[in-house]
Amino acid sequence: MEKTKVGIIGLGTVGSGVAKILLDHGDRTARHAGRVLWLEKAAVRDLSKPRDCDLPDGVLTDSIDEVIDHPEIKVVAQLMGGIEPARSVMIRLLESGKDVVTANKALLAEHGPELFDKARELGRSIAFEASVAGGIPIIANLSQCLTSNQVTSLHGILNGTSNFILDKMHTEGAAYSDVVAEAQRLGYAEADPSMDVDGTDAAQKLAILCQLAFGARLNWRDIPRSGIDTVDLLDVNYAQEMGYKIKLLAIADLKEHGLDCEVNPALVRAGSPLGEVGGPFNAVLVKGDAVGPLFYHGQGAGQMPTASAVAADLIDTAVGRTAITFRTLGLWSDQVKGVDQADFATSTGKRYVRAMVEDSPGVLAKVTEAFGAEGISIASILQKEPLEGDTAVPLVVMTHRASEAATDRACAKIAALDACRGEPVKMWVRD
Amino acid sequence: MEKTKVGIIGLGTVGSGVAKILLDHGDRTARHAGRVLWLEKAAVRDLSKPRDCDLPDGVLTDSIDEVIDHPEIKVVAQLMGGIEPARSVMIRLLESGKDVVTANKALLAEHGPELFDKARELGRSIAFEASVAGGIPIIANLSQCLTSNQVTSLHGILNGTSNFILDKMHTEGAAYSDVVAEAQRLGYAEADPSMDVDGTDAAQKLAILCQLAFGARLNWRDIPRSGIDTVDLLDVNYAQEMGYKIKLLAIADLKEHGLDCEVNPALVRAGSPLGEVGGPFNAVLVKGDAVGPLFYHGQGAGQMPTASAVAADLIDTAVGRTAITFRTLGLWSDQVKGVDQADFATSTGKRYVRAMVEDSPGVLAKVTEAFGAEGISIASILQKEPLEGDTAVPLVVMTHRASEAATDRACAKIAALDACRGEPVKMWVRD
Repeated sequence: MEKTKVGIIGLGTVGSGVAKILLDHGDRTARHAGRVLWLEKAAVRDLSKPRDCDLPDGVLTDSIDEVIDHPEIKVVAQLMGGIEPARSVMIRLLESGKDVVTANKALLAEHGPELFDKARELGRSIAFEASVAGGIPIIANLSQCLTSNQVTSLHGILNGTSNFILDKMHTEGAAYSDVVAEAQRLGYAEADPSMDVDGTDAAQKLAILCQLAFGARLNWRDIPRSGIDTVDLLDVNYAQEMGYKIKLLAIADLKEHGLDCEVNPALVRAGSPLGEVGGPFNAVLVKGDAVGPLFYHGQGAGQMPTASAVAADLIDTAVGRTAITFRTLGLWSDQVKGVDQADFATSTGKRYVRAMVEDSPGVLAKVTEAFGAEGISIASILQKEPLEGDTAVPLVVMTHRASEAATDRACAKIAALDACRGEPVKMWVRD
Repeated sequence: MEKTKVGIIGLGTVGSGVAKILLDHGDRTARHAGRVLWLEKAAVRDLSKPRDCDLPDGVLTDSIDEVIDHPEIKVVAQLMGGIEPARSVMIRLLESGKDVVTANKALLAEHGPELFDKARELGRSIAFEASVAGGIPIIANLSQCLTSNQVTSLHGILNGTSNFILDKMHTEGAAYSDVVAEAQRLGYAEADPSMDVDGTDAAQKLAILCQLAFGARLNWRDIPRSGIDTVDLLDVNYAQEMGYKIKLLAIADLKEHGLDCEVNPALVRAGSPLGEVGGPFNAVLVKGDAVGPLFYHGQGAGQMPTASAVAADLIDTAVGRTAITFRTLGLWSDQVKGVDQADFATSTGKRYVRAMVEDSPGVLAKVTEAFGAEGISIASILQKEPLEGDTAVPLVVMTHRASEAATDRACAKIAALDACRGEPVKMWVRD
């Protein structure tokens, strides 16, 4: 049987998982690829570090050049994290005639255009299934399965850490900081979880998906975003009481005026597919004009789910499917006319607004007036008992559909009331 | 831009949808395929029949030969239903050097081995995404995205008609026959719905999926199956009371002793992904040893979802991906050693059993004894009031895990009791 020699750069959690699949399950890759994917070299920084996989003699090396310069290695799983030296190594790999598989979403979100242009120029390919939503093959599904559709909307839970934390807040009534500590203990959150919980990770993934689904060439930094680090247990409880769950949603909706992209904690109806995504799972709800709604749910991270995606890319690359897809899609290419990002302020939707107000006569009227003056109708209103040891009462308003700008003006008016304490909390409601 | 000339045979609901995508949305296929998919000929039986799409002059013909013999048509969407002449036409298309796209699951389930061998022999390909689960791209996902996994289990709701009917029975408390009439009125069920409701359709689809997921070369007739036509509203209500929904489940579980395949109405926990599949939707829950659980949910039928799948296959075929996948997978090939079907009687699981018994002393003891004698523990038991105008009471037992054979023996003993009226109803419980 024909052999395709494969290299791996980086044997961390995911790299070790990929090595295991190649070494222990050669029968599968043979069955599905009609050839053996042969692990020829695996480059690591530190040879002495204990690892999670047994490599045959001669495979492990601490020289990246042994992979880059190896004349028989055709495909490389480049599994270094961060931007540099990952970027330079990827360019060197492409220049030495290798096709590359990566899981590095930050690198693609930052340097996708440069790297994809380089690969095209050199007649090489980059596969990146593992860069978004771990085990959910959303990249292949958007690149190949939905190609006869105009995707009209894509809503995703793309950060498993945030989902784990929010889910625990809902199910256990625990405060954000306590759950973060638990997530760190269980390995679902990094020692510094900021990229996960502040929306950066989800925005980078959304930028990649928008390129595939809409041809939109976005800088992830231009995607309006907020994280879950400011979500109050109070709002988790009120949302739940009204039949909703708070989820960190990455959304892209195709509107008349362009593509509306955002990453925000939002209220999603309990019992809906996205509302029921628990633990560290990921999910994507895509709507296409022909196919209708398609919902995907699976593991968003972890050694083997991510390795599964990397190994599928290695197979696709070895058999030649990736080269075709890469060539026909023209990702991040100036030649492809995609859609532009819409102006944030023109976005419309239903909102959840919670203000802390002094419980004095006439306050409720002033709050409802603030919405009325902006032409925003109120769908429901909830006035709660004052919190223990406090005189302010939480006032929760659910609006009907209104523009972002109008809702912001109404909230500013409420914040300016003498009776209002601090800034009102506001979140989208996505049905 | 390069052109790939395409033919369609059959302009029914799906064929018209495919024609619409090709004619109205050439920009999409151009963007995703890097070439134009040009509808050259569409063959129909009756030229005078009114259709759902406007074709340019010269495209429509009532001669299949005009498609088969056309020297420039490279890919044909062969959308004839039934077995013959669909089978012969497909062979003629392959022989005349054309790659074929089909949505005909019955044809593949019956003649997959012959047709795939023929295509391999001739160096051609057959794409069949639309044959299973309509808009859900489960074929591509199993063929390409999960190739580094051993799939260990596949549970699907593959028949939208049955799901629509069962869902209505649950939500509206309506009897089977009333809901069938409604489904027919809404176009979700055929005038003769037997293939949908008796499990045939789901078994044929399951046979195709088992080929992809497990390499199992099954005759769909050997898949033990029962349909929803015998599901009693009584059991729908009791299932609901115990926190379950009744769904027509097509399952394939990889066990030590082989592949356990069945199509049956089964109890699925409410709130679980499969339990919440409503209306005419389809869903598939796949478990892979690397990727873990992956859940897909989407439209199982309908003009545009199915056309979306056919058009994606046309694109995949035009760009060359299908040829690669078809060659590497060796589907239905004698060369591929797959897994065998397990013996039905060795299957184990939890069971729902409902017997109608005379409400006399000692009956409950005899029923529980019947289970005890077979070593089956009872998880819960529910004795209901007698139905109006009846002396018999429904006795509902939920067992712990036991073998199919043992549960059948226990049920036979219960049926043989003087106090038992008729055969007990039994269904699997799938958590």
